[in-house]
Amino acid sequence: MQELRHVTSINDLTIDEIETIFSVASEYLRELRDPNLPHRVGRSINTGSGAILATLFYEPSTRTRLSFESAMIRLGGKSISSADPATSSAAKGESLADTVRVASNYADMLVIRHPRDGAAKLAACYASVPVVNAGDGAHEHPTQTLCDLFTLLQEGKNLKHLNVAISGDLKGSRTIHSFVYALARFGANIMLMPAKGMELPEHVHWRLKNELNCFAVPRARYEKDNASVDVLYMTADKPHQLSLISDNAGKPRKNIDAMYVTRFQKERWAGKPEEYPTIDQRFLKDKKFSRTSIMHPLPRVGELDIALDTDRRAAYFRQAAFGVPIRMAVISLLLGFAREPGLKKYPGGFRPERHDIFDQSEAEGLTCINPNCIVHDAMEGRYARNRFELTAPHRLRCFYCESDIAEFIVGNRKTRHFSTDVSIPRDYVRNGRDIVLFADADAALAAGYSPVKRRRRAL
Amino acid sequence: MQELRHVTSINDLTIDEIETIFSVASEYLRELRDPNLPHRVGRSINTGSGAILATLFYEPSTRTRLSFESAMIRLGGKSISSADPATSSAAKGESLADTVRVASNYADMLVIRHPRDGAAKLAACYASVPVVNAGDGAHEHPTQTLCDLFTLLQEGKNLKHLNVAISGDLKGSRTIHSFVYALARFGANIMLMPAKGMELPEHVHWRLKNELNCFAVPRARYEKDNASVDVLYMTADKPHQLSLISDNAGKPRKNIDAMYVTRFQKERWAGKPEEYPTIDQRFLKDKKFSRTSIMHPLPRVGELDIALDTDRRAAYFRQAAFGVPIRMAVISLLLGFAREPGLKKYPGGFRPERHDIFDQSEAEGLTCINPNCIVHDAMEGRYARNRFELTAPHRLRCFYCESDIAEFIVGNRKTRHFSTDVSIPRDYVRNGRDIVLFADADAALAAGYSPVKRRRRAL
Amino acid sequence: MQELRHVTSINDLTIDEIETIFSVASEYLRELRDPNLPHRVGRSINTGSGAILATLFYEPSTRTRLSFESAMIRLGGKSISSADPATSSAAKGESLADTVRVASNYADMLVIRHPRDGAAKLAACYASVPVVNAGDGAHEHPTQTLCDLFTLLQEGKNLKHLNVAISGDLKGSRTIHSFVYALARFGANIMLMPAKGMELPEHVHWRLKNELNCFAVPRARYEKDNASVDVLYMTADKPHQLSLISDNAGKPRKNIDAMYVTRFQKERWAGKPEEYPTIDQRFLKDKKFSRTSIMHPLPRVGELDIALDTDRRAAYFRQAAFGVPIRMAVISLLLGFAREPGLKKYPGGFRPERHDIFDQSEAEGLTCINPNCIVHDAMEGRYARNRFELTAPHRLRCFYCESDIAEFIVGNRKTRHFSTDVSIPRDYVRNGRDIVLFADADAALAAGYSPVKRRRRAL
Repeated sequence: MQELRHVTSINDLTIDEIETIFSVASEYLRELRDPNLPHRVGRSINTGSGAILATLFYEPSTRTRLSFESAMIRLGGKSISSADPATSSAAKGESLADTVRVASNYADMLVIRHPRDGAAKLAACYASVPVVNAGDGAHEHPTQTLCDLFTLLQEGKNLKHLNVAISGDLKGSRTIHSFVYALARFGANIMLMPAKGMELPEHVHWRLKNELNCFAVPRARYEKDNASVDVLYMTADKPHQLSLISDNAGKPRKNIDAMYVTRFQKERWAGKPEEYPTIDQRFLKDKKFSRTSIMHPLPRVGELDIALDTDRRAAYFRQAAFGVPIRMAVISLLLGFAREPGLKKYPGGFRPERHDIFDQSEAEGLTCINPNCIVHDAMEGRYARNRFELTAPHRLRCFYCESDIAEFIVGNRKTRHFSTDVSIPRDYVRNGRDIVLFADADAALAAGYSPVKRRRRAL
Repeated sequence: MQELRHVTSINDLTIDEIETIFSVASEYLRELRDPNLPHRVGRSINTGSGAILATLFYEPSTRTRLSFESAMIRLGGKSISSADPATSSAAKGESLADTVRVASNYADMLVIRHPRDGAAKLAACYASVPVVNAGDGAHEHPTQTLCDLFTLLQEGKNLKHLNVAISGDLKGSRTIHSFVYALARFGANIMLMPAKGMELPEHVHWRLKNELNCFAVPRARYEKDNASVDVLYMTADKPHQLSLISDNAGKPRKNIDAMYVTRFQKERWAGKPEEYPTIDQRFLKDKKFSRTSIMHPLPRVGELDIALDTDRRAAYFRQAAFGVPIRMAVISLLLGFAREPGLKKYPGGFRPERHDIFDQSEAEGLTCINPNCIVHDAMEGRYARNRFELTAPHRLRCFYCESDIAEFIVGNRKTRHFSTDVSIPRDYVRNGRDIVLFADADAALAAGYSPVKRRRRAL
Repeated sequence: MQELRHVTSINDLTIDEIETIFSVASEYLRELRDPNLPHRVGRSINTGSGAILATLFYEPSTRTRLSFESAMIRLGGKSISSADPATSSAAKGESLADTVRVASNYADMLVIRHPRDGAAKLAACYASVPVVNAGDGAHEHPTQTLCDLFTLLQEGKNLKHLNVAISGDLKGSRTIHSFVYALARFGANIMLMPAKGMELPEHVHWRLKNELNCFAVPRARYEKDNASVDVLYMTADKPHQLSLISDNAGKPRKNIDAMYVTRFQKERWAGKPEEYPTIDQRFLKDKKFSRTSIMHPLPRVGELDIALDTDRRAAYFRQAAFGVPIRMAVISLLLGFAREPGLKKYPGGFRPERHDIFDQSEAEGLTCINPNCIVHDAMEGRYARNRFELTAPHRLRCFYCESDIAEFIVGNRKTRHFSTDVSIPRDYVRNGRDIVLFADADAALAAGYSPVKRRRRAL
């Protein structure tokens, strides 16, 4: 039996797989638009006759849900939908874990949107059919990123070494997190132009720098030209490529391939922003924007001037349209409809077995530091474990929401000692269950642990 | 490429087109009910295999939404649905204009219900697939009117020169507005029996009289027989037909073909009505009602006595049933499924190029006088213009909600003068952009305009 | 024409019909799981091509609605759905009776969930297509019971003479009411373990004892072994079978075939329970549970320990999975898809013509004593009558919600007398309309009736 595949993060997909998705999507797009095919409307590619897609949405949506449903219908399948948490069994207090276990019997694929970071990963742990993340809290929205990259392809750009500026709420926007990971993996330069206080989360920065080959360009090199840029990342697959990217004495190329705008994610934050960047024709009048694709995941609520709608650079409605062929490709590859061998042949996606897992199942000890992580949900958390990936000797990543923990201390459950300066030895993680992590010394003391006297590696 | 057709008003359809719809609907009805066809249930006509209908409903509905979806399914297509504004992207603050532009990529036809008058017209301006108005505020509900007329046909009535009484909330009921336009165009006598304070809007009266060939019968002629009638309209395609209609010395015929009852539209009004007409067996005991079809668009909430349900004159449940074949016909004609050439051959419908458009795009000046018009919605209004049809020398009709403005003054943007007694010269509208309209002199003065000294035609 | 069949109660189905449903469901299950059929996913049995199922849900649900929709899709049909009362025409004040009359024209079958007891029966009175009860208040949920019994079959149990324990909210849980009726009809021993104050309703007890051949085992016989059991029922199709069931000197068999757990039905009750039984591994450690199927209709909210999920006795997720084949069987038999002659050949189900109906249509007199009965809904009640089945000489059962009335008095509308000790003579019910029932003497006096002087049978 083939391994069950999920798409909870853009990093679940290899570059090869992403390119396969684009190739299948191009084919579908061609068929959808072919004026010579018999029906002018209502054309269905119809390779997936009889398949059922379930959309389980715990947050408002029109675009994403309808585009998934439309994609499944165009493939010849059908969909069932739970679009409103208030009228679903969640209103009766049912956990996501139970819901997906049950819904796995009703449908061939589950598409899930949830307000909690890491919800899709939790769902994937319990589902017996493929789960696709349609947005989980501020974590990720991988199929949006596939649409975004496909849009750039269709706009005639080369995905390698793109020059992309990103504006708005980089903290709360899950689409941005998936997007920057993908951009970095394709070797892009990324100019971050966040609204004040809405900078990219620290763990995303860390990952760009430590896992995705990015380095931050010193501010002096670009500040004069791009005063509103907060951080400029450059990526290089190999060190010698750096000179290829920055052909202008180390300065970033002037031509911006894409200006990606995002709205303020009001559903994630308590207040309103004091100021929020608006992108309009004035902003885009500089020569470096002359061939820029203006992008937006939509909905927009004011940060992108509607006067741009008739600007030839405005790519955002085309971008939305690509949602259908892209999601057709994702569905058909995950379910094995397409002629291509599909996603199933790449076990484990982009992160196969890269990190050891530290599974702290006891009630005591460290939990994810992200208050919006699914593990902190009173109901859902009972079905999650305190599970971390060991991404560096003294760094943990939450298995669900992928937030990082850089500060913690290690205790030994047998000796009841703890040390403040010890990393987690890989051997402990692999072989034993006798270590326990704490957020800090106070937490360890409160749990009845005592500090080791001398500083040493072993506890 | 064929022109894109929408049905936002019953007046978007010519009489020929309406009759084509009825002929196609009759055929579908026959097939749906044919006991010799293989499946007793679940029969699908199946001409539109693979087509997708999107229902975008911003107001509660069961009947209309489900009958559209059922119609599409019976045709072999499928539907996707956004039935609850609270769980759609509207909850995130997305505009209708953006939603329909995006949804045009997900479906082959959009069916829209919205609380604002003129919303369907705004949607049609932005959609790239056909838009059907399933009710926009108190404006219109054209497919309901198609069901209503088809019901009368199926009840054995001749659509020409019908004698129809209409009772209830004639102000807030959009179905009535579409209905009286259609009745007038088919040459009916229309007896209006509004609840107190819920008379037909002034602009609908004006249109009946000035565009649809109706004249109000002097009250003395009918008052004795029909004390509860507010206005009686008679229509004549040609003047000499009047005698044919009123064969009783100018008095309206006594036989009422249809008694059309509507509920109080509580969602449109703040308070409750003091009194509201109830139609029951007592009311209908007069001989003139002996062969009357009792009609109601449903839902009813008390204004139509449930004791009538078993009365053979009660046509309202049959009327509801015709929703499916009628909507099948509308869908198949708009999408080109049916063997008939369909709606596409009649460019522009009933009002092709009849009125000049005055497009006042600036922020200053006159706006629609209907406070519920879509142009006054804080979000949606940004996508609408202050656009008017010039229906008479000194009369404007809002392009979206079709409310009339009979009082306004004309200013000249170059001379900064205004005149209170000048009509809009057609030439100005056609050639120039140098006039600006104001609601009144105060508004013009406030905008820095000064009155012309002498009364003259030119400003 | 074949009689229209509905499933509003498990008792609408004969034992033969239930077994036919299981046989059809087994076949569907085999096809759904056959690894040799062409498509690994999205397999549709496809016997009901083009049929439309309407799900009309007035209460939250995911599981039941999606499993019905999935079942219809697997059969090749499609569904239309009104899942949220707040966005349906009910929000405009439409009655269920009107809604089902209209929806009967849009779909081939209606599946209804409603917060009021008896709503499904009322719907069935007005629908012109089959109605399936997907849960009406605290009354019944018959297709859940079909899943439950089918699960026990699939777990290898024999449905005859099962030994079943039931724990939790036996008062508010509609699934339990359908379940105990079915268990009794299959000759089960039933151990009731209610939460305090949530005992099985009196009228369900009465029915088990007086109509379904059950008798309560004296407490002394089982108390030592099963202290938490409130009532133990044994059923015997024929008196001599008793010894076969209780092979241990009249004591119930020790092996429990199924432990059925239910959640607290918070939506039915005002407060929260002080204590509520939780079923966990500790509870199930006794030898008599060693081969017990642990069942739950889901959702669960704490009363069933999640640590049991990996226990081989946990049948509840398999139970949920059987929702699809069972509902496929119900749909295809009701609509005549399957090769079997189906439900249609058994007119009237389990209770054909068993009881006389007393139809008290006047405004005066007795009404159902269940405050949650659909007849007491201000809107819906106008479409219901005060209709009772005469289940015993002095006992009435509400036609809609099946609550019993054991206390009432009989008046004679002609003589205006009433008697406190007179049963309803069957002849009155069959031939006349001159009797009227009152809740008590005060109600009769208030209505202007006077007591008969002498005690006698005739009024």
